Amino acid sequence: MNKLEEYFKKISLNREPANLYNPIYYTLSQGGKRLRPKLVMMSTRFFGGDEEAALHPAAAFEMLHNFTLIHDDIMDNAPIRRGQPTVYKHWNSNIAILSGDALATLALQEMLHTPAQPETIIALTDLLSQTSVEICEGQQKDLDFETSENVSIDDFIQMIRYKTAVMLAGCLKAGAILSGATPADQEAIYQYGINIGIAFQLKDDLLDVYGDTNIFGKPIGGDIRENKKTYLYLRSLQDAQDTDKQQLLHYFSSTNFDEKEKFLAVTNIYEKLDIKHKTEAQIEAYVQKALVELGKISAGNETGKNDFITLANELSSRNK
Amino acid sequence: MNKLEEYFKKISLNREPANLYNPIYYTLSQGGKRLRPKLVMMSTRFFGGDEEAALHPAAAFEMLHNFTLIHDDIMDNAPIRRGQPTVYKHWNSNIAILSGDALATLALQEMLHTPAQPETIIALTDLLSQTSVEICEGQQKDLDFETSENVSIDDFIQMIRYKTAVMLAGCLKAGAILSGATPADQEAIYQYGINIGIAFQLKDDLLDVYGDTNIFGKPIGGDIRENKKTYLYLRSLQDAQDTDKQQLLHYFSSTNFDEKEKFLAVTNIYEKLDIKHKTEAQIEAYVQKALVELGKISAGNETGKNDFITLANELSSRNK
Repeated sequence: MNKLEEYFKKISLNREPANLYNPIYYTLSQGGKRLRPKLVMMSTRFFGGDEEAALHPAAAFEMLHNFTLIHDDIMDNAPIRRGQPTVYKHWNSNIAILSGDALATLALQEMLHTPAQPETIIALTDLLSQTSVEICEGQQKDLDFETSENVSIDDFIQMIRYKTAVMLAGCLKAGAILSGATPADQEAIYQYGINIGIAFQLKDDLLDVYGDTNIFGKPIGGDIRENKKTYLYLRSLQDAQDTDKQQLLHYFSSTNFDEKEKFLAVTNIYEKLDIKHKTEAQIEAYVQKALVELGKISAGNETGKNDFITLANELSSRNK
Repeated sequence: MNKLEEYFKKISLNREPANLYNPIYYTLSQGGKRLRPKLVMMSTRFFGGDEEAALHPAAAFEMLHNFTLIHDDIMDNAPIRRGQPTVYKHWNSNIAILSGDALATLALQEMLHTPAQPETIIALTDLLSQTSVEICEGQQKDLDFETSENVSIDDFIQMIRYKTAVMLAGCLKAGAILSGATPADQEAIYQYGINIGIAFQLKDDLLDVYGDTNIFGKPIGGDIRENKKTYLYLRSLQDAQDTDKQQLLHYFSSTNFDEKEKFLAVTNIYEKLDIKHKTEAQIEAYVQKALVELGKISAGNETGKNDFITLANELSSRNK
């Protein structure tokens, strides 16, 4: 992955205008999990593709991911990301809008420059652009939830499918496309990705309540403070009796409560309803669905598949 | 061009989530000059390409243009565009950021779906993405100018080259690529586009001071009110004597002046320095450069070239 870091430097370091490229370098060089490039590389290795060529889709997806972070942080008023000020906080909203725009385009350009057959390049770029549109749809659904009073758990899962899962699934499919995998295998690895992606996001929401700030890299309790309609909240609303339900609705109706008081009151109800374990069970269910999809893949061997099993378990038991 | 309007409806009307696609439909259906699609079609016709296929790059460039308007209006705090509230005013900033993001990606996807040889599709998409990156660079330079005290006329021309001219040049080159024009002809029509693009933007700045609100579609004097460093301002600063220069610097140091008083004082100095005619002379100079580039093109015939001559003259003498 060192080549990836080198490449990120090349596209954003010492490039003019500085106010456009410095925020891009700042974001890309912060690292993070680099989960998306890992998925592209894993999938390419599994399907026997060209790992050198795969660096391009790997970089492209990581860039697309970072673009979404830059813009989402403006929309969510998020001050901290990966333990550092977000771009709009460090610079300003206009610079965050514009450097995000440039990064999204650079991602697509990166994909276009993949050394592969023209048809493969087009399929990869189409996948990336489709992923990008769906992520916007997911983010808009998420924003719509803020003012919606009737969000079902199904609506929520649909939202995180678009907002988070399609990107992980897209990374895996990109490796399959690049390697010339059959359409059936492309679809199976994509569906594996959708399911680990949903598990991944549920875990993220869980960590926002039950994680350790120092390990997780961002403050705990932000979702509760901001009245985010997460799986934990929606499930508790579904399972709660009258008084607890009223309490939940009361606390999620405003951001003006004392932050600690609100966090304690809400997690108290979560505890009573066993929400932590219920969420963990949901995560496990999506991991199992992912493994069923994995079983459908005809290419590769058991050792290769074991890596995907390990990955699914790692994502669902991570603490950061 | 009716097919284009039909197509814009198809991609954005009745699509979910509504808060993502309604602003896209709102923007695309407002019309505007449709200059960019016209340029793609003119160029395709001139170079003898497939006009049916050209609708895709035509739509793609118009979509990219509209994406830049949605985001620029947030950054510039512009309330009105084409006589209507801008997206961020009509909805809000978050929706404007996100629907702009989606529209930019839909533009690239539209280009990818051009019915042409794979190599041609890649060349067209590469052109669109390169154009998009350069437009971001231009917009950032423009934002940087707001707080910069040393903006030369050369800096300014460089900025509008990226912010405005590369898109018009890109449209013309797209028609040439699609039609299989020689690299030399692609380059010449691109350079013609750069020069009419610069003339176009200078004319825009001129209309912002000397235009008629009802015809121009947006309020007059916005650039002066917002201390925009336009060609008119930079040229007057270059040509002004001591007192006038101090006056200009004074008025362009704040937005707290009475709007009418400021407009009158500044245009008074413009008049004294003959800035209107000097700007018109610059516009004419870029039109002439464009015609020199046009002369280098080996394809097409004189009648075809006449359309490009007419276009250059129309853009530079337009009043809206």
